[in-house]
Amino acid sequence: MDRRVKQQIAFILEADKLKNVIRRNYLTDGSRRENSAEHTWHTILMAMLMFEYAENKQDLNLLHIIKMISIHDLVEIEAGDTFIFDEEANKNKFDRENQAAKKIFTKLPYDQGKEYYDVWLEFEKEETADAIFAASVDKIMPVLLNTYSKGTSWREAGITSARVFETLKVIEKGPQKIKELLADLVTLSQEKGNLT
Amino acid sequence: MDRRVKQQIAFILEADKLKNVIRRNYLTDGSRRENSAEHTWHTILMAMLMFEYAENKQDLNLLHIIKMISIHDLVEIEAGDTFIFDEEANKNKFDRENQAAKKIFTKLPYDQGKEYYDVWLEFEKEETADAIFAASVDKIMPVLLNTYSKGTSWREAGITSARVFETLKVIEKGPQKIKELLADLVTLSQEKGNLT
Repeated sequence: MDRRVKQQIAFILEADKLKNVIRRNYLTDGSRRENSAEHTWHTILMAMLMFEYAENKQDLNLLHIIKMISIHDLVEIEAGDTFIFDEEANKNKFDRENQAAKKIFTKLPYDQGKEYYDVWLEFEKEETADAIFAASVDKIMPVLLNTYSKGTSWREAGITSARVFETLKVIEKGPQKIKELLADLVTLSQEKGNLT
Repeated sequence: MDRRVKQQIAFILEADKLKNVIRRNYLTDGSRRENSAEHTWHTILMAMLMFEYAENKQDLNLLHIIKMISIHDLVEIEAGDTFIFDEEANKNKFDRENQAAKKIFTKLPYDQGKEYYDVWLEFEKEETADAIFAASVDKIMPVLLNTYSKGTSWREAGITSARVFETLKVIEKGPQKIKELLADLVTLSQEKGNLT
């Protein structure tokens, strides 16, 4: 195994730990909380399905979006999952995750590590068209799971619909269809009592 | 929510069940067996990393490869995971999974369901350049996890190195670098006693 492959294997073995990073929300069957690795896969699938609704396809690169989603949560191996509605923990989230990103992507060969770090940073900033699309899909996923389950992670934290719209406001900049989906899911969740 | 979005949501909620399909192999920390959703994510990450080693890049489409990987295990929601070294269970694997594929992809809008069924079938046949690349990466993943852990799923079933090479022979048609990686991992596993 040459040095480059060894570095790539070290990275992929480190990434294995994302399967043990536990998020707040539950699977739809309520059996357990979701981990960040399976969340990432589910988000990739949703991005593929929802891509047809992007109004600005000429500015988007689906492969780049999927790359972004694939690696966006790796920082949680070091920094842990930060519950999106935990305002206190979100204050220093970027700094904690930026440190973590530098640590994990440094395991890769230099060029690949730099590429992935830049892709991670692009996702975090939510400025480019690709990042806005990726973030919209990422943010809709726990709403979907919370709506079609008992919404336990929302109930535990007493989340209101106003806070959902406020916290997930990147979705306003994403595809109209995802924005409408969010509104529909929030209404459904209110009807079920998952959101107050 | 219009009919098309409703169908897409029904599909994505069905896909959530892949997080509860348990594979034979363990995570590298040995804490538990891996599920098929997190395996799929890990495989996508590996495909992105290994793409640089493909000798036939002009014949490959990485986005298509990732689509293929993203959906390749969804059939297990219906058909269950089939241990690759279980010869008896592998005899009717294709028929069981083909039925499952028809059932799950039918949840999608017709055009999208047909596209995904075709992509699934392409992966299964291992004939196109994209499918051979995708299958090579998919097949190397449990070898990687078995090598860098106690190799419990191999030990339980008394797997030999000869059977690994025989069963994963699609890797011979993939990138030379993945072929070499397989040989290196098998040697390492023999040294550790994970393979006999």
